[in-house]
Amino acid sequence: MHIRTAITAGAALVQTAVAASVQAKNVIYIVPDGYGPASQNMARDLVSLVDSGTTGSNPKINELAVDDLAIGRVRTHSANKMITDSAASGTAYAAGHKSYNGAISVTPDGQPVGSILEAAKLGGLKTGLVSTTYISDATPAVYAAHAANRASMPLIAEQQLGYSHPLGPMVDLLLGGGRCNFSPNTTEGSCRTDDFDLLTYAEEQGFTVATDREEFNALQKGQGRVELPILGLFSEGKSMRYEMDRRIIQDEPSLLEMAETAVNALHRATRRRNKGFFLMIEAARIDHAGHDNDPANHASETVMYNNVVAWVRDWIDRHPDTIMLSAADHETGGLTLNGYDPLPLRNATHSRAYLQSVWDNERPADADERDFLVSEILPAYGLETVTDEEIQTILDASSIGAGIAALLSSRAGVDWSTGGHTSVDVTLHGYAAGQKRRALQADLAGGWDNTELPRYIEAVLDLDMDAVTERLQKAAQEDSSWLGPRELVARRDLGGCDHYH
Amino acid sequence: MHIRTAITAGAALVQTAVAASVQAKNVIYIVPDGYGPASQNMARDLVSLVDSGTTGSNPKINELAVDDLAIGRVRTHSANKMITDSAASGTAYAAGHKSYNGAISVTPDGQPVGSILEAAKLGGLKTGLVSTTYISDATPAVYAAHAANRASMPLIAEQQLGYSHPLGPMVDLLLGGGRCNFSPNTTEGSCRTDDFDLLTYAEEQGFTVATDREEFNALQKGQGRVELPILGLFSEGKSMRYEMDRRIIQDEPSLLEMAETAVNALHRATRRRNKGFFLMIEAARIDHAGHDNDPANHASETVMYNNVVAWVRDWIDRHPDTIMLSAADHETGGLTLNGYDPLPLRNATHSRAYLQSVWDNERPADADERDFLVSEILPAYGLETVTDEEIQTILDASSIGAGIAALLSSRAGVDWSTGGHTSVDVTLHGYAAGQKRRALQADLAGGWDNTELPRYIEAVLDLDMDAVTERLQKAAQEDSSWLGPRELVARRDLGGCDHYH
Repeated sequence: MHIRTAITAGAALVQTAVAASVQAKNVIYIVPDGYGPASQNMARDLVSLVDSGTTGSNPKINELAVDDLAIGRVRTHSANKMITDSAASGTAYAAGHKSYNGAISVTPDGQPVGSILEAAKLGGLKTGLVSTTYISDATPAVYAAHAANRASMPLIAEQQLGYSHPLGPMVDLLLGGGRCNFSPNTTEGSCRTDDFDLLTYAEEQGFTVATDREEFNALQKGQGRVELPILGLFSEGKSMRYEMDRRIIQDEPSLLEMAETAVNALHRATRRRNKGFFLMIEAARIDHAGHDNDPANHASETVMYNNVVAWVRDWIDRHPDTIMLSAADHETGGLTLNGYDPLPLRNATHSRAYLQSVWDNERPADADERDFLVSEILPAYGLETVTDEEIQTILDASSIGAGIAALLSSRAGVDWSTGGHTSVDVTLHGYAAGQKRRALQADLAGGWDNTELPRYIEAVLDLDMDAVTERLQKAAQEDSSWLGPRELVARRDLGGCDHYH
Repeated sequence: MHIRTAITAGAALVQTAVAASVQAKNVIYIVPDGYGPASQNMARDLVSLVDSGTTGSNPKINELAVDDLAIGRVRTHSANKMITDSAASGTAYAAGHKSYNGAISVTPDGQPVGSILEAAKLGGLKTGLVSTTYISDATPAVYAAHAANRASMPLIAEQQLGYSHPLGPMVDLLLGGGRCNFSPNTTEGSCRTDDFDLLTYAEEQGFTVATDREEFNALQKGQGRVELPILGLFSEGKSMRYEMDRRIIQDEPSLLEMAETAVNALHRATRRRNKGFFLMIEAARIDHAGHDNDPANHASETVMYNNVVAWVRDWIDRHPDTIMLSAADHETGGLTLNGYDPLPLRNATHSRAYLQSVWDNERPADADERDFLVSEILPAYGLETVTDEEIQTILDASSIGAGIAALLSSRAGVDWSTGGHTSVDVTLHGYAAGQKRRALQADLAGGWDNTELPRYIEAVLDLDMDAVTERLQKAAQEDSSWLGPRELVARRDLGGCDHYH
């Protein structure tokens, strides 16, 4: 990098010197979790097909919002693995330190390190976190919590509301899923082992709490002049719905609706002040669809990410004191487009996971498996025309979901090399309005380590992350129990997923 | 793009408006053929391992030259396929028009279109082409030839020397392989059906002709004040050696040596003039190693590409009236790093193709296959420790080469989804010295179609590609036989490759 930093993983207090020729009042940082280089092509070509009616043999390709915002590339390896998880990469992006897979803004030796969001809060800015997964899962967690193990989500939830955070409440707005880490174990579906009711605690602290679509609508419209702080949790013990499922079962807000609501609320709270806001928005389920090797769903979540970026970009044009940065934490699925034709993806209306759940839970005990598959599952996955042999292959697969995902991927000419992550670089995107955009592009072009990005934001917003680290480590010297154990005997149910993302 | 062009595929003469805030005397354009997003990681991590001795479980990653030069992304689809070949993508990069796979700077309806190199030549600049494959193969061909079918390499060679090019000789320097398209059919290994001797023709036209290492050395040192035009062809009926083979069998110049020689010769010829040069350098064999799913070789060729970029970058620092751009034509192999550890690649000293040739041609008739494999093939591929079962799998594979490549890829934790190309976007890289670099970065950030890049170079060098197109199409109206046939009954031997790149 021409604006090279000198950050040593694990070092407590490091003097950094990242130059930014851009200053801004607000920063919106968007994380497309698990979004790799091929994800964008896959989504773009699918949208272009739907828009134009052309096929892979006569491509007419239209750009999506993110296409035009590429600036550079980012390395994502963690302190102990070439292939990072969201926790280690999130810690790098949020706090500027390399750490081990599973770390929530702590160093390899277990010391807490301050995040850009915490530095923003202590610097007088308003702060927000938005995600389509558990709001206490790794990607949002690293911004306002510190834990030795990402699986300590109930502990992370407590910190996110300031209950056990040494510096008090750091986040003014949280919108996402995973209510189970906030609800007492007396509630059905709770992920807590104790009866602490963080939802009631939040209300006592002045949060407006929303837990369903109707309450979200009130936030969305700014009805009754809803003010910060805000806590919106729209799923209990699982992630929020995939966008393709949500479009049909409209009981939850979309990521775009949450993003708009967050930006509007943070802007209302800061527009008459000198200090603005820092907001992190996670398009969390690109990653989950990648783990599931679920092609139409991966493309659909990537389109939603592009739609959020498009909206934010337009908002910045009207509020040019704001910049946007966006980079994935890692690629998921090892997706390659070795013969991609979007056409077979066009008619899929549900995710693999949703249809697996239909298969597992809604199939009558006396139903013929083959008949149920053909009538209820395959059409919703866009597989209207299937041979007897293909049906048998699906029935013989490790799961119905695995079988249909493999068939649809094959028909669409895409390949997945893993159900996990890969170590390919991700693309750095950025946007600012007017001439500030050229300065941002020149600042950010090139190759970055993921630890360098928050240092750039620190310079843009004129913040001090190391001062936060100093306060956090002082607190940890006195008592480090709030960080939780590094090794967990059992871990929380992550909503049916059998791995960390 | 913020500097959007309005180029219609197939349209003859299109008014374009690409803004460039950078002006330059010289442009060096580097094509890493078949280089995808994961190629750079693979090479970088391997070099970092060798440099630091650390392994994948404790990564210490150092940047390579290209890492820091990322600016944007480029779409590569052709006029008739989502997955382009080098000819269609080359035509887009060289001449700014979408065309069909196989087209050499002609439109889908067969009309020739002027290239940035031809516009440079007619604008008074010196021009050069360097490649490690046949100099008449698709990627170099599109800059100074026009053919309905990329397989017409003898015809392309004639145009490259100006013999049958309607506008006369366009290229002042050609360095690469594929002498067979220039040598008469009376020569062993010739790829021509006629007895036309283009090497003698070149000498008659004043070219300095070099065909071996010794003659290259004279060019390299500028001995005897060698002046343009120069024709150097260092392999007969195949590509030049892979770098890992060449390091041991040192009968050919490296890509880096050819690049240095080309830049120095073009610079000598232009340094006292107002008009500079346009040079295209192709790192051709990243692609070939990708087709072969040959991991250490793909990384080695990518390292050489980085070494060329490093040298060019240093040269530009000393000659700041020059800019460099670099982007692949497409990705090859569908490479993903789903568990990458570079360690197993470290001891490979030869390419898959070289060892297949040893197996096919150097195995004594009475040799035991298994013994020969274990003693002569596996150690040279870095496979010192192999189980009996693995040996049997290699012997049972479709070829020995396929067997060893699959085993080494598996050990290194990399996956290839195809023996062909994929449609993922490629990364755009650029460099200029001093403050000009920030202007270049801001100009080039974002998402590009591959047809837009030459229009940017056109603006940087103040050239007129459409004027070239007009002259070429006028010539084609009178007689289009010089473009060759679109369908070929038989095609030339491409050096043992069974597909186009």
